[in-house]
Amino acid sequence: MRCSIITIGTEITKGFILDSNSNFLSKQLGIIGVDVRFILSVGDNKKEILDVLKFAYENTDLIITTGGLGPTADDLTRDCVSEFFGVEFVLSESILESIKQKFRKYTNMEMPEINVRQAYVPKGGIIIENSVGSAPGYIIRKENKTLVSLPGVPQEMKTMFNDFLKGYISDHILKRDKREFFLKVLGMPESKLDEIISQLGMEYNTIADYGVVDAIFYFRNDEFDEAKSKVKSFLTDKLSDSDVVFFFSDDLEDIPSFVKKEFLSKGIKLSTAESMTGGYLSQMLTSVPGATEYFLGGVVSYSDASKISVLKVKEETIKNYFATSLETTIEMAKNSLEIFQSDMSIAITGIAGPGTDSSKKEIGTVYIVAMMKNGKYLSKELKLFGNREKIRSSASLKAVELAIKLIRLESKNENSGV
Amino acid sequence: MRCSIITIGTEITKGFILDSNSNFLSKQLGIIGVDVRFILSVGDNKKEILDVLKFAYENTDLIITTGGLGPTADDLTRDCVSEFFGVEFVLSESILESIKQKFRKYTNMEMPEINVRQAYVPKGGIIIENSVGSAPGYIIRKENKTLVSLPGVPQEMKTMFNDFLKGYISDHILKRDKREFFLKVLGMPESKLDEIISQLGMEYNTIADYGVVDAIFYFRNDEFDEAKSKVKSFLTDKLSDSDVVFFFSDDLEDIPSFVKKEFLSKGIKLSTAESMTGGYLSQMLTSVPGATEYFLGGVVSYSDASKISVLKVKEETIKNYFATSLETTIEMAKNSLEIFQSDMSIAITGIAGPGTDSSKKEIGTVYIVAMMKNGKYLSKELKLFGNREKIRSSASLKAVELAIKLIRLESKNENSGV
Repeated sequence: MRCSIITIGTEITKGFILDSNSNFLSKQLGIIGVDVRFILSVGDNKKEILDVLKFAYENTDLIITTGGLGPTADDLTRDCVSEFFGVEFVLSESILESIKQKFRKYTNMEMPEINVRQAYVPKGGIIIENSVGSAPGYIIRKENKTLVSLPGVPQEMKTMFNDFLKGYISDHILKRDKREFFLKVLGMPESKLDEIISQLGMEYNTIADYGVVDAIFYFRNDEFDEAKSKVKSFLTDKLSDSDVVFFFSDDLEDIPSFVKKEFLSKGIKLSTAESMTGGYLSQMLTSVPGATEYFLGGVVSYSDASKISVLKVKEETIKNYFATSLETTIEMAKNSLEIFQSDMSIAITGIAGPGTDSSKKEIGTVYIVAMMKNGKYLSKELKLFGNREKIRSSASLKAVELAIKLIRLESKNENSGV
Repeated sequence: MRCSIITIGTEITKGFILDSNSNFLSKQLGIIGVDVRFILSVGDNKKEILDVLKFAYENTDLIITTGGLGPTADDLTRDCVSEFFGVEFVLSESILESIKQKFRKYTNMEMPEINVRQAYVPKGGIIIENSVGSAPGYIIRKENKTLVSLPGVPQEMKTMFNDFLKGYISDHILKRDKREFFLKVLGMPESKLDEIISQLGMEYNTIADYGVVDAIFYFRNDEFDEAKSKVKSFLTDKLSDSDVVFFFSDDLEDIPSFVKKEFLSKGIKLSTAESMTGGYLSQMLTSVPGATEYFLGGVVSYSDASKISVLKVKEETIKNYFATSLETTIEMAKNSLEIFQSDMSIAITGIAGPGTDSSKKEIGTVYIVAMMKNGKYLSKELKLFGNREKIRSSASLKAVELAIKLIRLESKNENSGV
């Protein structure tokens, strides 16, 4: 199933906003077996939208558009699709009523007349309900080709994809009888993980993204539960021996969600002490709702003075070992535990570049310490590559990896009575 | 000048990486007057790259490709461009030598034989040197159409665009005799700013992006300095009366860079105290090199307990007014000054959603306080819209706006002897 994604809006071609919709859709479609061949972005221009629709129609079987479903005159998706596919758009009284109700409920005002446009839907098409915003989406099928239009607002688009479109494509277009099961692994190269998984002799795919590898397994619906437990027990066995952190899931989840689950399940409260990452780790952890249930807070000690005055790192430690050192990082972790009265802390120092610091260490040098309140800790010295942003994000990810490793080590020791 | 951007690589169409190159190029090209009409992403597939090249060639005058210039077999840009444009690629001994030297210098190893491919350049084309990585770029002109190929690595692509391509397009393709001058305004709607700027009767453009508006002025080279000071003095006059923060610049710079300049020029050291933003503000400020020169650090007090124990907010304050309140935020700002011995502090509390907190206030409610060590402060209560991520980023941006407002207010008072 060859697919084109078309993202529509002059704000994209002018570079005013970064198109993240196509990235989300490509990844999600890839997982269920749809092969995205082209991503085409075009401004709010009728001729050019038609040009792109034609290109997509000639070269692929499934076309998904996002954007251009708003109520204003520059929202041209409905017009262009109607013209290109020769499909009439008709007013749906029930959708109009639902849009009117949403306006009353969420904005406390009557629906502006202009929004009537959003209640027009393709005759004979399938309507995709929009529970988050006003414009519904739709599906049109013609000569073995399928066109889907979704709104451009990421939250609306994602909700409609997850709640309806993903299942529709699986069941009705791909006619799949399979479901996915996910494994997320931190700290193992893709090729190495592949070697292990391939021993299972099952259908799978891997996605590698800077230190994180997702493996996707495809099981037949009627074999799902059995196959899932087989995979889980085989891999738990294989991976537990190696030095990696891994999670299983029925969905493709992000790292902060996994971290939250891990800490909550063990009832561990976390605090941080960040230098070079400057708050990157905290904001990553708190990007997920409910992080407050395990994350108490952190100190961003960006200057040496604040390491001493706020985090109570000894002056001699910094003098003797520099601010970027294992010794300083250990003290930061220890004092973070005390200051926040947490069960566990993560501390990071390092050099994000482009310049180095008084330690004259190489750019990309990073020290990470994860410490339990009983004093046990794991530490790591890393040499990371890339630009400033890349180094900050990689360091934060590695810190999370180390913290989870420590949690699992501790719980293993407890269970085994050590 | 109608332009297509083609980003090449299966990692994009599979959704493994987010294409940010096209966003950077669209914005930068828009500023110098190139009209990007299509952004086309395609995988490493010869037929499909040729399909996209054909579409771009038929519909636009300038084509810029990124990616596919690496040394491996799936890097097909050179082959495809050669075939499509009928241009022969020949080995450049001098580029080969320079690639060999880079390998010795940066990796301490000899150039692998496979990298020879990167020394092939189009006969009669213009070569764009790559000072950051190994693959050079090139420009081919044919029948009034121009094709440019740049590497896909963002840092290489950006450096080559800024150092060479931007000027080349301006001077040789657009034949412009103009230069740009930028104004960045926080906290004023685009339409309102437009009203003021239009009084100047000059050529300009505006870009609005969630609370920040950039205005771009176009002056003839020979009139640049004079026009610039005219614009500066007119707008300084008009905008100083209003309640906004604004900056002038010869380049399109980001907010953290402006903030750094502002604090450094006044010699003010900053600390933060963040609740709902969870470190978002700190990591934003420290995303720019050299932030350490003014940013001392911050506390992320995500839990009520840490507000009390670490930031020393009085228990009664939280009990009487809730954690999300002006009263709590003021105490956080005050105590951050003391803890970090800073000249100024910024504190934020609020509700990022999707749930609310014990205060039962609406999602998007945010309190911000910016305070000088003399005790003077500005505060703001906001109702922000959008999802969790949006609310966190908007709150951080608004906090920066308030802080700079306070700096300017204070320095005005000092100057006027108040």
